[in-house]
Amino acid sequence: MEKSTDYLGPFFEPKGIVIVGATRTPGFGYAIPLMLIKQGWGDKLRLVSLKGEELHGLRVYNHIKDIPDPADLAIIITPARAVPDVIKELAQKGVHNAIIECAGFAEIGEDGRKLQELTKKTAEEHGVRLIGPNCVGVVNTNNKFTSVEIIDEALKPGNLGIIAQSGAFGNVLLDGLYEKGLAVSKAVTLGNRIDINESDILEYFHRDDLTEVIMMYIEGTADGPRLKKTLEKVTKDKPVLVLKSGRTKAGSAATASHTGSMSGEDVVYDGLFRQSGAIRAESLEQLVDYARVFTTQNKPTGNRLGVVTTSGSLGALAADEAIKNGLALPSLTKQTVEKVMEASPSWMNVKNPLDVGPSGMYDTALAAMMTDPNIDMVLAITIIPYSVIKMLRPQGITVSDLFGDMKKIKALAPQKPFALIAVGNSEFVNQMQEQAGEKTPVFTSPEHAVKAFSALYKSSIYL
Amino acid sequence: MEKSTDYLGPFFEPKGIVIVGATRTPGFGYAIPLMLIKQGWGDKLRLVSLKGEELHGLRVYNHIKDIPDPADLAIIITPARAVPDVIKELAQKGVHNAIIECAGFAEIGEDGRKLQELTKKTAEEHGVRLIGPNCVGVVNTNNKFTSVEIIDEALKPGNLGIIAQSGAFGNVLLDGLYEKGLAVSKAVTLGNRIDINESDILEYFHRDDLTEVIMMYIEGTADGPRLKKTLEKVTKDKPVLVLKSGRTKAGSAATASHTGSMSGEDVVYDGLFRQSGAIRAESLEQLVDYARVFTTQNKPTGNRLGVVTTSGSLGALAADEAIKNGLALPSLTKQTVEKVMEASPSWMNVKNPLDVGPSGMYDTALAAMMTDPNIDMVLAITIIPYSVIKMLRPQGITVSDLFGDMKKIKALAPQKPFALIAVGNSEFVNQMQEQAGEKTPVFTSPEHAVKAFSALYKSSIYL
Repeated sequence: MEKSTDYLGPFFEPKGIVIVGATRTPGFGYAIPLMLIKQGWGDKLRLVSLKGEELHGLRVYNHIKDIPDPADLAIIITPARAVPDVIKELAQKGVHNAIIECAGFAEIGEDGRKLQELTKKTAEEHGVRLIGPNCVGVVNTNNKFTSVEIIDEALKPGNLGIIAQSGAFGNVLLDGLYEKGLAVSKAVTLGNRIDINESDILEYFHRDDLTEVIMMYIEGTADGPRLKKTLEKVTKDKPVLVLKSGRTKAGSAATASHTGSMSGEDVVYDGLFRQSGAIRAESLEQLVDYARVFTTQNKPTGNRLGVVTTSGSLGALAADEAIKNGLALPSLTKQTVEKVMEASPSWMNVKNPLDVGPSGMYDTALAAMMTDPNIDMVLAITIIPYSVIKMLRPQGITVSDLFGDMKKIKALAPQKPFALIAVGNSEFVNQMQEQAGEKTPVFTSPEHAVKAFSALYKSSIYL
Repeated sequence: MEKSTDYLGPFFEPKGIVIVGATRTPGFGYAIPLMLIKQGWGDKLRLVSLKGEELHGLRVYNHIKDIPDPADLAIIITPARAVPDVIKELAQKGVHNAIIECAGFAEIGEDGRKLQELTKKTAEEHGVRLIGPNCVGVVNTNNKFTSVEIIDEALKPGNLGIIAQSGAFGNVLLDGLYEKGLAVSKAVTLGNRIDINESDILEYFHRDDLTEVIMMYIEGTADGPRLKKTLEKVTKDKPVLVLKSGRTKAGSAATASHTGSMSGEDVVYDGLFRQSGAIRAESLEQLVDYARVFTTQNKPTGNRLGVVTTSGSLGALAADEAIKNGLALPSLTKQTVEKVMEASPSWMNVKNPLDVGPSGMYDTALAAMMTDPNIDMVLAITIIPYSVIKMLRPQGITVSDLFGDMKKIKALAPQKPFALIAVGNSEFVNQMQEQAGEKTPVFTSPEHAVKAFSALYKSSIYL
């Protein structure tokens, strides 16, 4: 029996919110109330500041105890030294959950470490659960509750849950994901993790129906055995994609170093992730690449990749990367070969990768590849000079006339992982993405697409 | 004494051009004359087609011999089988250089191989030098001569020379490079390389004052020893960045394979590139990353990297990657530490990577890092939530107010390699690129920037 994660509910679905440290000067204390009002949370929002008065049309109370209504979540944006007292007052008011956004704790040295200990002790004594400090808290796209200063586009609901140790990192990640076709269910930045940590959130996301894939950035864990146990459980049902810094001594200490060796600790993490079925990304871009594939594609039934291409070169680059990453490029079935040969010019060599060149039968070839029982997943490399696209446009000829209707082709084998690779001008890439639709990611590099498919395959064989 | 490369002159600076296979139907025969006219080459252009008549306002001659004027370059777009006769007629007319764009030679099988042999023999007998077949020929941005269907933006003159074996690949590469801040001097696609090959072009680019960096995509070489000797010579003066496909058997055969082994051949290439000082990229994106750094930055005086960041996480990711790739992150000099500490809040830890957090002294820290004698090259990680940028904009606060004037900071140590890393919304990235200017690349991933700097450092120690 898994333990309850109900205690995290108020962080994502608060009934009443207190912002302690609301202020008229630029910063979180000004921007977060403004944003919550804009997202429709004004009625449930109560502001507190020693200065009192009014902000964004809402009354500002001098003290937490002055608030007339009940509340279940606080966002604390006061100076760090005030936090322990704030926590006591919150508990007295009956508020038992708090996001501490302010910095100035363990990350600044000895004095900060002492303050962090005091904060932790105070919260434990008064039964207050904490996210932070030194973070930007949470986002819930479903009800638009967010303690993160965020652009509207990033609040589009989706199926990706995000756990980021660093607030700034989480914030800028959210700023860009929608441009890559990724939409978020819930996001949490953890900061110094006095109380709630990545394993708590993993358990919560595990039970959250709106979260189907989890993306995590951590610098380390305070509780390795628990993280391993939690990942083992969660990854059975939902993929967990991890980026971890501190691979080298210089990275973990962020300090001087001349050694090229991996830090011993990192080898432990590598084993932990591998054994628990988490998928580790090598870079920030790869983390996003993986998320694009994992949030849109089913797991493949095997490692057999089919590639259709208008460019032999890009087909060869994709084939190289596939073999290097444990995928196979099998021959097509006799039926597929015959089907394609029937439609193709005599010069065309029907194999895998299938280079259709300028034959004009891209859609026939791609449809045949999609339905071939020898093939578990398909990459479609669509390239054409942009000058040609521009010339054909006035004649009403679109990319779907040139390459086929990608949505229809995908529908021929909806369970097979399918992605596009479009190289060249960004306008062309955008046209291909629009045509392919939200459920088919378009990559701009064959190697990146193949690596993401390889990760998807590897996650499918983890037991 | 190096042999002359004058024989390649007419391919890039023709005095008179004959297009054999001009046509009114869509395709190269229609589009290439149109483009050359648009670029101001109409006066020097003569069109030939058995159908005669007129195209784009120019007379179309029935036969090459009918052309009244002299010419020194032909672009051949006829059916493949006609090519040997066309070459004879060109030689009789005194045209001794030809780009064969049409396909249908060795790449289609036995019949094509025979035709290719005949074409080669005919050209040799008649003293005609060939680029192609199965290619799209050349681009010279300086005089706007191009046999490639290309968008105007790609014709902006720059310092990057491109050699691509595949026509389609070269074409789409050109479509996108300008969006990444790269501008081309000359580009060549080689196709089946009956005659002129990558070593010829390397020698030509070596002597070309407008070409400072060379980017090459090859699937293989017909003459390994010559390529090695040529690269050894060229890389002493100009960096050569190489992407080679066919790393695996599946890639080189582009055929069925279940083995994960590198092809033996690829190991030979790897050695060839390393020994001759060429820089091999692992992927298409990395090739472009490298080009962005090599075309804009000097070689560093050592491997000591300095990192300034607003995000500790991204600083750690950069540090990890630096150590993994043979760079060092040394301590700063006492003078630099004192300079930064004087201006910084008490919580700031002055080290490398230098995380300035929200201290508001990014420009001071970056300037100090740029001028530190312990540091050979600098990466500036600039991140900030996009909602903040949007909020500050109406107040007239720009990214240069937040991070400093990047052009001025670069000017403090103009010889030091310098790049930015901006993560988040693409509009923010674009603002940073605009502010940084053409000579400072902005990357969207710390790992990619570090790998490019590492390649730059490694190229600086090759003897």
